[in-house]
Amino acid sequence: MAYKENYPSKLLEDAVDAISSLPGVGRRSALRLALHLLKQPQENVHHFAQAVVNLRDDVKYCRDCRMISDDDMCSICSDRTRDHGLICVVESVRDVMSIENTGQYHGVYHVLGGIISPINGIGPSDLTIRELVQRIEASSPAEVILALSGDVEGETTAFYIYRQLSKFDLKVTSLARGLGFGDDLEYADELTLGRSIVGRQPFKP
Amino acid sequence: MAYKENYPSKLLEDAVDAISSLPGVGRRSALRLALHLLKQPQENVHHFAQAVVNLRDDVKYCRDCRMISDDDMCSICSDRTRDHGLICVVESVRDVMSIENTGQYHGVYHVLGGIISPINGIGPSDLTIRELVQRIEASSPAEVILALSGDVEGETTAFYIYRQLSKFDLKVTSLARGLGFGDDLEYADELTLGRSIVGRQPFKP
Repeated sequence: MAYKENYPSKLLEDAVDAISSLPGVGRRSALRLALHLLKQPQENVHHFAQAVVNLRDDVKYCRDCRMISDDDMCSICSDRTRDHGLICVVESVRDVMSIENTGQYHGVYHVLGGIISPINGIGPSDLTIRELVQRIEASSPAEVILALSGDVEGETTAFYIYRQLSKFDLKVTSLARGLGFGDDLEYADELTLGRSIVGRQPFKP
Repeated sequence: MAYKENYPSKLLEDAVDAISSLPGVGRRSALRLALHLLKQPQENVHHFAQAVVNLRDDVKYCRDCRMISDDDMCSICSDRTRDHGLICVVESVRDVMSIENTGQYHGVYHVLGGIISPINGIGPSDLTIRELVQRIEASSPAEVILALSGDVEGETTAFYIYRQLSKFDLKVTSLARGLGFGDDLEYADELTLGRSIVGRQPFKP
């Protein structure tokens, strides 16, 4: 059952409009959230709004890797113990956080800020590919990992970047693909299972 | 998989903290929303924050029924074509909106602002029951409908209000309970089905 657009207050309607502009938040959830905020202490609501505005107004992007940062250079790029000769190219800030959480990676990153997607009107010039090329020219890393998603757009973007990097003397790799650890063969999709067989690895007992 | 608390930016972490304080929004969704807001035009984010702050700072509550309103009296209470001798007592603003959307009710409302819930520390004095009693003393309505939920807390609250109203010469009613329209007997819970049999109605062909 959808709520008809009968709001008892213009202020409430404006807030519902604003909150329901967030992705994945419908008008009914937005109403619930607006009424929740109404019940909170005034200072909490001001703090909420200020935190969002501060993020948008004051956040910086690392001058090297374009990761979100509070400073001109992010904590990863300014960490001299990390391997600056190894650059992992990812679509978004969230991908950096996901890889960092594995604790398995000790190189640096390059955040594209999106993925080539003609259907969404996103071309190579909307991403930080030029900055990646300039960075490689300047720092001559040994390896670039293209850690992009395995769908068509991810593969298109990876291929485009691969061609841009062909003029450099460096190793270009991509993430290992195959069955997830703990995955059951029976429930794996055919493409993944097929690629797992083709890309089989020496058994390590 | 939960994100570890490794945010690349304090501003981002503050925004995630703020957004995840909303009910039903986990830290992972909050991160997604924060990163979405980061990509929006600055003025949209300011508008979003301002709409939320305006709601909290400037909303009024109707002096009669305590409904959210932009004025001292809400549009329902100030509508002289509605039956002011019929007051429907509800828990929340959302209940008013739900009943209004049915188009079946032409009386006025009284919003309690919650429900008696000892486990949540909410007693009768936290609700607008005193205001309801004063309003009935002043306006002598013919009927009060206790439109509260059918759970223990709703029934407790209804019973408490019923006792407060016993000194007045008015009709006190509650919502009809029974099977929903279109409900299948087979899937109805026993309590609802039992009450539907006990409270059976003359057949109207």
